[in-house]
Amino acid sequence: MSAEKFDAVDIIGIKRDRGVLSPEQIDWTIDAYTRGAIADEQMAALNMAILLNGMTRSEISRWTAAMIASGERMDFSSLGKPTTDKHSTGGVGDKITLPLAPLVAVFGVAVPQLSGRGLGHTGGTLDKLEAIPGWRADLSNEDLMKQLADVGAVICAAGAGLAPADKKLYALRDVTGTVEAIPLIASSIMSKKIAEGTGSLILDVKVGSGAFMKDEANARELAETMVALGKDAGVNTVALLTNMATPLGLTAGNAIEVQESVDVLAGGGPEDVVELTVRLAEEMLAAAGLPDADPAAALKDGRAMDVWKRMISAQGGDPDAALPQARESETIYAPADGVLLELDALSVGVAAWRLGAGRARKEDAVQAGAGVRMHAKPGAQIRAGQPLMTLLTDTPEKFERAKEALADAVVIGPDGSRPAQKLIIDRIS
Amino acid sequence: MSAEKFDAVDIIGIKRDRGVLSPEQIDWTIDAYTRGAIADEQMAALNMAILLNGMTRSEISRWTAAMIASGERMDFSSLGKPTTDKHSTGGVGDKITLPLAPLVAVFGVAVPQLSGRGLGHTGGTLDKLEAIPGWRADLSNEDLMKQLADVGAVICAAGAGLAPADKKLYALRDVTGTVEAIPLIASSIMSKKIAEGTGSLILDVKVGSGAFMKDEANARELAETMVALGKDAGVNTVALLTNMATPLGLTAGNAIEVQESVDVLAGGGPEDVVELTVRLAEEMLAAAGLPDADPAAALKDGRAMDVWKRMISAQGGDPDAALPQARESETIYAPADGVLLELDALSVGVAAWRLGAGRARKEDAVQAGAGVRMHAKPGAQIRAGQPLMTLLTDTPEKFERAKEALADAVVIGPDGSRPAQKLIIDRIS
Repeated sequence: MSAEKFDAVDIIGIKRDRGVLSPEQIDWTIDAYTRGAIADEQMAALNMAILLNGMTRSEISRWTAAMIASGERMDFSSLGKPTTDKHSTGGVGDKITLPLAPLVAVFGVAVPQLSGRGLGHTGGTLDKLEAIPGWRADLSNEDLMKQLADVGAVICAAGAGLAPADKKLYALRDVTGTVEAIPLIASSIMSKKIAEGTGSLILDVKVGSGAFMKDEANARELAETMVALGKDAGVNTVALLTNMATPLGLTAGNAIEVQESVDVLAGGGPEDVVELTVRLAEEMLAAAGLPDADPAAALKDGRAMDVWKRMISAQGGDPDAALPQARESETIYAPADGVLLELDALSVGVAAWRLGAGRARKEDAVQAGAGVRMHAKPGAQIRAGQPLMTLLTDTPEKFERAKEALADAVVIGPDGSRPAQKLIIDRIS
Repeated sequence: MSAEKFDAVDIIGIKRDRGVLSPEQIDWTIDAYTRGAIADEQMAALNMAILLNGMTRSEISRWTAAMIASGERMDFSSLGKPTTDKHSTGGVGDKITLPLAPLVAVFGVAVPQLSGRGLGHTGGTLDKLEAIPGWRADLSNEDLMKQLADVGAVICAAGAGLAPADKKLYALRDVTGTVEAIPLIASSIMSKKIAEGTGSLILDVKVGSGAFMKDEANARELAETMVALGKDAGVNTVALLTNMATPLGLTAGNAIEVQESVDVLAGGGPEDVVELTVRLAEEMLAAAGLPDADPAAALKDGRAMDVWKRMISAQGGDPDAALPQARESETIYAPADGVLLELDALSVGVAAWRLGAGRARKEDAVQAGAGVRMHAKPGAQIRAGQPLMTLLTDTPEKFERAKEALADAVVIGPDGSRPAQKLIIDRIS
């Protein structure tokens, strides 16, 4: 036998039998899996046991620390200014990072926003920004530090060196039906964010059909778990629970979401996108020590737009270039008079994905111009025959499957038959 | 994408979320895993979900049928006589197959006893028989049929062609902490036994410290599940729940268990071994259509011994040769006067294993002479200083670890302080 400290079958057996792993057992598990001393099939069985039997808070905290220890940690202390970061658990039309990062940087706070690409029906921030001609997601650590010093805001791809154990584990969870485990979701997100070295972190935990967490109880548990993990690691962490029953804003796609973000930076844009952007900016600034900053004003007076343009230019993009447009469009019309009671986020997300805005597999390309443009939000008064949505794609054979996804997306009914939903459901700190 | 009928992640998700798999999904799962279209890590996650969330009776039945369909099926109908088989879930000192197979064959019933080697603290029937000079476990299907026709009883290794899906799945369960799942245990045992083509099957489901199932409720559930699977497949199946809190007989090892079996075939031997052998023979004979046969008489009058000698000779063994003896021995003495209240099966099994009678890994060799010879059974009156057990091995450095295993094995106390335990706990049909 080798000189391993523990045996994988024993570790699996502990979680299978609802036991608690010791700190040493957790450290060994993450290290041994990264080294290949625990096989994929063993980790898959362990993940399923964790999904079904749970983990204690201290197990999750140690698991997160072990994943951080598997790779490098970034350090922004040499910048001489506070750092803050936002993470969203993902939703449909969630382009908030785009206006938010430059908006917060207006106030002298550094925003190192390491982001990902989309998989499935929720779009990826990098996919959206790549619709801007010339813009590039990959920065060296030196470029990242320089841009944080000069511009204050960076949205770029996370390097491979942060929490490599999480990368290996996430890929395994993706193919073994073990993505939906709150301890594993929380530790995956927080290990990357803590390794990233931010001083404070605001979490936007989405709830509803278009979110990963469909119901509020699970979302709340995830939020509380992540806030506790942040505090354990010395990162000032706050979570907002926000509504994802309907898409954010009036666009779901890539270029069209960039355009909507630019509208917000220009002082306009849809009310819900503005509200969430300002609220998250307030939280980030307060966490960074600036509770009295007025981000709403910085959207109105052009300061946020100035930082946006410098941020895009610094990464090779042309902030004034025309954005790509889809070659084909098809409009969906309202079938009846009444109030738009429901515009289902998951349906719109799946439609945008099927139109080419998202990818089914990591290696797929996305269409910059594809997506769904909405013409009304829930609560709006609707006339039969008015346009409700415009579907956009370069590949018109995709319209049919996108329309199938939207078959039950819209509910129109009499006024007052459903209460309006709050955008920001709760704050957890 | 490939042309697979189902997606492994969807299948895993159904069991993870406590759903029920359709017959088509189960057939695909077993077939796809055998072909390699479901990866080991996916099957491991599915196994853990099955272990923790269970399966319905009809799911288990279909799962078993799919494993049978993965390989060849044997057919003994050309023999022109009834066939019957016994399967034990494994215990310490469980040599019952050795006297049982020839005893049943005395009455003209064919006994094709396809057996395995031991792993861990429960010995394997083939390991025991291999202590007989010249005896070989591997027979071709033709040799097996010929011996069943001529002698009536065969104890040999199962061919690789029966239920190959089970072989692959068992190897996976062994390294992923998913052995202890009743649906998977039941389908594993029954797929092999049904593929083997026996007309009737008696299951000896062990309960207690030395058994796989430590508590009666789990053993009962396993027994009921297997009996139902047998009936679903048209195999007349009966299960006995039997006690494995203490070893069977007075020996745990290889050659010493063969010797004890020969004692039973000669009309002697320990009472519990005789009782269980006769009871199982009666069950097997009744299942094969001979409810009035008298196996106890056939042990006493030498008919069973005659078949035993022919069975051993037919497989190259010399039934009259001296059996190997261990080179070294060490005796454990009673520490006090009183009644032997407890002689723990698991402790004795682990001691025998550590002395060299068993193996830790499939590729290890076993010592023919190693094991534990017991000098008293629970219920016996004991004097301080009398021999309780003799430890046997070729490698005396093993005594220390064997004695550690036996540290708490023996409880001696006042008479009447514990009720006697029944050997045969229940019958399930």
